[in-house]
Amino acid sequence: MPKKHLKKNIFYAQSGGVTSVINASACGLIETARKYKTKFGKIYAGKDGILGALNENLIDVSKESAKSIRALRHTPAGAFGSCRHKLKSLEENKAEYERLIEVFAAHNIGYFFYNGGNDSQDTAHKVSIVSKKMGYPLTCIGIPKTIDNDLPYTDNCPGFGSVAKYVAVSIREAGMDVASMCSSSTKVFILEVMGRHAGWIAAAGGLAAEQSGDAPHIILFPEIPFREDAFLAKVDQTVKKYGYCAMVVSEGVKNEAGKFLSDAGLTDAFGHTQLGGVAPVIAQLIKDKLNLKYHWAVADYLQRSARHIASKTDVEQAYALGQAAVKFALAGKNDVMPTIVRTSNAPYRWKIGEIPLVKVANQEKKLPKSYITRDGFHITEACRQYLQPLITGEDYPPYKNGLPQYVKLNNVLAPKKCRS
Amino acid sequence: MPKKHLKKNIFYAQSGGVTSVINASACGLIETARKYKTKFGKIYAGKDGILGALNENLIDVSKESAKSIRALRHTPAGAFGSCRHKLKSLEENKAEYERLIEVFAAHNIGYFFYNGGNDSQDTAHKVSIVSKKMGYPLTCIGIPKTIDNDLPYTDNCPGFGSVAKYVAVSIREAGMDVASMCSSSTKVFILEVMGRHAGWIAAAGGLAAEQSGDAPHIILFPEIPFREDAFLAKVDQTVKKYGYCAMVVSEGVKNEAGKFLSDAGLTDAFGHTQLGGVAPVIAQLIKDKLNLKYHWAVADYLQRSARHIASKTDVEQAYALGQAAVKFALAGKNDVMPTIVRTSNAPYRWKIGEIPLVKVANQEKKLPKSYITRDGFHITEACRQYLQPLITGEDYPPYKNGLPQYVKLNNVLAPKKCRS
Repeated sequence: MPKKHLKKNIFYAQSGGVTSVINASACGLIETARKYKTKFGKIYAGKDGILGALNENLIDVSKESAKSIRALRHTPAGAFGSCRHKLKSLEENKAEYERLIEVFAAHNIGYFFYNGGNDSQDTAHKVSIVSKKMGYPLTCIGIPKTIDNDLPYTDNCPGFGSVAKYVAVSIREAGMDVASMCSSSTKVFILEVMGRHAGWIAAAGGLAAEQSGDAPHIILFPEIPFREDAFLAKVDQTVKKYGYCAMVVSEGVKNEAGKFLSDAGLTDAFGHTQLGGVAPVIAQLIKDKLNLKYHWAVADYLQRSARHIASKTDVEQAYALGQAAVKFALAGKNDVMPTIVRTSNAPYRWKIGEIPLVKVANQEKKLPKSYITRDGFHITEACRQYLQPLITGEDYPPYKNGLPQYVKLNNVLAPKKCRS
Repeated sequence: MPKKHLKKNIFYAQSGGVTSVINASACGLIETARKYKTKFGKIYAGKDGILGALNENLIDVSKESAKSIRALRHTPAGAFGSCRHKLKSLEENKAEYERLIEVFAAHNIGYFFYNGGNDSQDTAHKVSIVSKKMGYPLTCIGIPKTIDNDLPYTDNCPGFGSVAKYVAVSIREAGMDVASMCSSSTKVFILEVMGRHAGWIAAAGGLAAEQSGDAPHIILFPEIPFREDAFLAKVDQTVKKYGYCAMVVSEGVKNEAGKFLSDAGLTDAFGHTQLGGVAPVIAQLIKDKLNLKYHWAVADYLQRSARHIASKTDVEQAYALGQAAVKFALAGKNDVMPTIVRTSNAPYRWKIGEIPLVKVANQEKKLPKSYITRDGFHITEACRQYLQPLITGEDYPPYKNGLPQYVKLNNVLAPKKCRS
């Protein structure tokens, strides 16, 4: 093992869409690695994710104080920057992998920690293979992260629990607002949430409906083809029963032909197709067919950056996974990812598990059918039992002058050693 | 005074768009009135606001426990229901005023507390006049409430501080998200907020920009006509300088011809005009003219119901104004509204003041010119000094299973005594 001869350096990168707790994983990783000064050399982080390695923009984490690193635990978004750059297969893009290894070698990198979703776990796995082939052995450890909660083999993914909490809290609050005024004002409220391919986030909104009549009354999942008639009947019936109807709609809802509703053909005055937003499409349909007064909200990035209402469980798990990644490296593990293993539902208990990266790579965990009610418009008790612990607990950031105090790192780049 | 002869009852009603702290005013009013059992009879609340009086749907507040009333302090929306029903002038609709007095008389109401914006203060004033004319003397006290912050003669309006905090926190968080990924992904982020006629809410987003380069980089106010060229130049310049551009846009932004941008002519596939949403209009413009990748969010009701991130200052003032309304009644005042008077900026200090309802009625306080920077795209230091104290302090609701615990009242109606 390389670390026997010489202390090897660490390279950590954030990948893909950022979350309100990805920096908590970075915090867990850096704080843990800093405790093992005899085992590890320097810690570098990729500026803007893996692009930081490819462009040799390595952030020297030693320039950050212990206080700043601690503050990462309560800071949303990606403190070192992230990107959506996906490395292709070795056959298709050998040069990019060689470049990665060249930069790693130049900076004596022995550990590659990649914090991301399924694409990133695939990349980490490929880098592990390539490094062996090129005779530059490298410890490659994945750290799970995605608000979409679609990684297999882990109870859940850091980032998801906090989005889930945001969505459940928001639809509860907005639902109460609509209920207050529905006798003379808005009858239908639509909250559009993320999750283009899997309905986990939309499902989380369902947690707010604890008692009969509570919002949301309807959830639209990407897994369930949108049937206009059944939907309109449900809206009409809900408004007649409760006086209003509040719903959570996934951005990924498709019609029966498999086409996104958000691409339903809205055009601007110049005839251009208008991009994005399934909420206004649903709102228009409700107005045209039921003539009900509506309001809609699109949470967009607000939901995944809302560190002010993060789930404590999520923050703790994100931190623990960053910590576990370092411990895995210390234990000589390679080409693996730490996971969350649920050992008990009520009370919720969990521990760290592990899975080979090759198993995680490029797989998608969809919402099981048993989590959606038969009519397709809500979540089942089984789904509630799965989701509920993930939003439990509050973990408020510190405030000053009424605003959360998030850290901005120095992000000092290490001197370059390779040709660009 | 009627209360000399016999204990008169109280009628309280919530009016117009609800907020995350209007129930805190109700809490202040009810808790205070309950302390004076020798002075006041029963407390009634209008079901769905003033409609509750017109339809004789009077909620008997004595059926609510002290614990439930206490919980109103941390519960958003309108616990008794609200409405947008505006009473016309006495000439236009004498019958409606007579009906109101008939119901009040039947239930021995001696005190009318009306919790709302400028329309409601106008109504409360008219009811006061009518009651005198009809020989049914009534104590009429207004309690200010509006997220729009457009009531004159009060430092600010309960409901506004919490929306302001929500918007400032949200644009800070979403701005950090965009900053993390802008090197390879979204370059422009647009957050649409409420405030159709006044830019107070949009201005509050500006508080998040404490250091050079912080989001939001641009604010679009309803007070400043939208100039496409200047706007696009500012976006382009911001993206070139900081790598991204995050902005807060008021739903009420108008073009130079005075037309709402949100009515800019989007049509669906059937040629219907699409309703609502200035954010997608701005996004489309940025794509067409600058070809930058964008995301947009529309906060809608989420912003005004977000009790989970309410401003402590706002909650305290809302409570104090409900309390003050009762004390005004005890002191024999009539046809007035308690106000917030700012006595010091730093540290922020305030006290309760008072203003005759006739002065408040139907007036609108717009954002002063001195609060908007010369280029029209941000707030000035004077604006920051005014706004900052209003978002200060957190006042978290209690949580259970990861969700805020808001109270749902019994809302038992008193037996009817009048013809319908």
